[in-house]
Amino acid sequence: MAVGSGELPPMFPVKGFQLATGCAGIKVAGRKDLVIMALAEGSEIAAVFTRNAFCAAPVQVAKKHLSDATNLNGVRYLLTNTGNANAGTGEQGLNDALQSCASLAAIAGVDAAQVLPFSTGVIGEPLPMKPLLAELPATFATLNENGWAEAAEGILTTDTRPKGASCQIEINGETITVTGIAKGAGMIRPDMATMLAYVATDAKCSPEYLQQILNDAVNSSFNRITIDGDTSTNDSLVLVATGQSGVALNSDADKTLLAEAVEQVCIELAQAIVRDGEGATKFVTVQVDGGASVEECLKVAYTVADSPLVKTALFASDPNWGRILAAIGRAGVADLDVNRIKVWLDTVLIAEQGGRAATYTEQAGQQVMNQEALIIRIDLARGNVSETVWTTDLSYDYIRINAEYRT
Amino acid sequence: MAVGSGELPPMFPVKGFQLATGCAGIKVAGRKDLVIMALAEGSEIAAVFTRNAFCAAPVQVAKKHLSDATNLNGVRYLLTNTGNANAGTGEQGLNDALQSCASLAAIAGVDAAQVLPFSTGVIGEPLPMKPLLAELPATFATLNENGWAEAAEGILTTDTRPKGASCQIEINGETITVTGIAKGAGMIRPDMATMLAYVATDAKCSPEYLQQILNDAVNSSFNRITIDGDTSTNDSLVLVATGQSGVALNSDADKTLLAEAVEQVCIELAQAIVRDGEGATKFVTVQVDGGASVEECLKVAYTVADSPLVKTALFASDPNWGRILAAIGRAGVADLDVNRIKVWLDTVLIAEQGGRAATYTEQAGQQVMNQEALIIRIDLARGNVSETVWTTDLSYDYIRINAEYRT
Repeated sequence: MAVGSGELPPMFPVKGFQLATGCAGIKVAGRKDLVIMALAEGSEIAAVFTRNAFCAAPVQVAKKHLSDATNLNGVRYLLTNTGNANAGTGEQGLNDALQSCASLAAIAGVDAAQVLPFSTGVIGEPLPMKPLLAELPATFATLNENGWAEAAEGILTTDTRPKGASCQIEINGETITVTGIAKGAGMIRPDMATMLAYVATDAKCSPEYLQQILNDAVNSSFNRITIDGDTSTNDSLVLVATGQSGVALNSDADKTLLAEAVEQVCIELAQAIVRDGEGATKFVTVQVDGGASVEECLKVAYTVADSPLVKTALFASDPNWGRILAAIGRAGVADLDVNRIKVWLDTVLIAEQGGRAATYTEQAGQQVMNQEALIIRIDLARGNVSETVWTTDLSYDYIRINAEYRT
Repeated sequence: MAVGSGELPPMFPVKGFQLATGCAGIKVAGRKDLVIMALAEGSEIAAVFTRNAFCAAPVQVAKKHLSDATNLNGVRYLLTNTGNANAGTGEQGLNDALQSCASLAAIAGVDAAQVLPFSTGVIGEPLPMKPLLAELPATFATLNENGWAEAAEGILTTDTRPKGASCQIEINGETITVTGIAKGAGMIRPDMATMLAYVATDAKCSPEYLQQILNDAVNSSFNRITIDGDTSTNDSLVLVATGQSGVALNSDADKTLLAEAVEQVCIELAQAIVRDGEGATKFVTVQVDGGASVEECLKVAYTVADSPLVKTALFASDPNWGRILAAIGRAGVADLDVNRIKVWLDTVLIAEQGGRAATYTEQAGQQVMNQEALIIRIDLARGNVSETVWTTDLSYDYIRINAEYRT
């Protein structure tokens, strides 16, 4: 199940960024499970990785190569496999990740440290190296700038649909493109999740500013979504600037335009992940207004968004506002005056003064709950800070998908 | 579903503590939903309540009456209804809780402040006062010291079975009884949950020491269980000492004996709640050893115990140790050296040095996973602190129960 339409938007190619997708048979024969991306010489790259202490072998290697590559004309290739996360695989896992990079580097004629590896799939089983390495040359041969849509399929695991976003902006009369793809359907929450995302632009941008753009964009997109509160060992998000448009960012206004475009692409990708959340039947925006701090707004938003009781009520299309109040009450906000809190479903006021709103009718609440997309809005009436997170319901299909994943 | 046998153990009566159970028809006609408990004059009482900021009307009233009753010869009655939590009901809810106490007090010839109210069930709907008050006299008339088993049924909501524990100990050659009942099946975790528990002893005990015994017992029992991470607005736990055995606690050794008996009863009740967790098919002990502090042991234990991915793997009887490692890794323990961590299923070492243990076989892991009760043991190798929590798996039935609860 998934919410809304699953069609990819038009994916504008990014000059200097090529993609190729192959079928290595890592877990299932014939499935697209190998993606190579090539960055034109002179590209800059920024990245964000999982904060899980058990960080997977490819994440460890990618971090090291990112740092090593600065002495080597920069990163030139991104190598992604699905079907196996190469996580919890110890020394062997590190060797396998290094070997994958070295093999692609040999084909491409670059240094192994100029290749970043990414893996997603089952944890704790050795990466099937033979089929992976055997497929590299054929896939490499098909690199092209129009490969975004196919690559969006090649990076999927339990996702039911590819996820992409793309936009074009004008800077000084010239066109800049920002295009990205992502995968992830469960294990999604702050600090990211089993999530891989690749965003590229043909703008010219310093590595420092590129990293800043990425950090800001992640905070208002991928770090504001939650499916089940779990996070993964493999999350990785990269932002590449090839510079091939020839357009430089000459002013702060130019920089802001690019930052906004990247943020927009990241938000669309993050929301697409939520819409495809494991077993999702609803797309839910939890908006907390009137908080005294970002921290307390997020505490409340995530406690509501992650509450299994709220999520099962959403699945049942049950306007059970009592469970929302109970979640707010246990969010750990000090000195919360529950009598000042108001809760809406979309524009329907459902709770105030510690109980059901006088104007509330079950019919009005039910009408909102029956929608595929809805907003739970909470006013804490303590200050002026607002925060928004996006989540899904908790359905039978979530259990089925996660109980059957390995078998 | 539920784990293990659902039979109540022998429930020893407690001198000076009477119980009566009635059917008021608060939510479902003919269902036991009203329980009165009577404390002999001179009884002492200790209590622990939910820390949820949205604390229900009966909890607010019970706290106030507890304090007021000390000037009035103490608390004499506990009045419990199921089918309706009287939570999120605003001013009306407070009035209803007060009115319930006043009505029972009038029948019993005591002050309203000598009655503590308890409610559990659906949140946010007005307490049906008419049927509740109408049933009070008939139920009151059946108070007796052998009413424990029936009362254990009378306090249930989504529970599938009554929960009781009882033991007798010798102090100075005299027999002391400790008996208790509890309800709760979901919304269970630290700070308690939709949980009500009543424990009584005929020992003679000062109110201060009684509260201390209760606080300690709660910390090693009800505050060490988790079903779904949610907590409720109504949790209440009371411990009564009637003193009617005539046995006083003359030494620290005597006091310790009573404390241990109360703790034992609380642990049995807490574990019974987990075994009857909503949709539970497994009883899982998560034991964290080798921690540097209680706090970090509990962080790891609860992150593993509450992880939907670990819980769905448990439901599938899938020894997916990768999900356990991933949960440990995101528990937020600073400077965790993942290579020193070891994880066992019962006595089967499944993970070490950041990956699958060399000696591990799927067959051995599967054998443990097929059991109805199992231990996930984690050694952090950072210190000497150990902590244990108890939990269940996450099944289709959890979704069904919570998605259908109101309809």
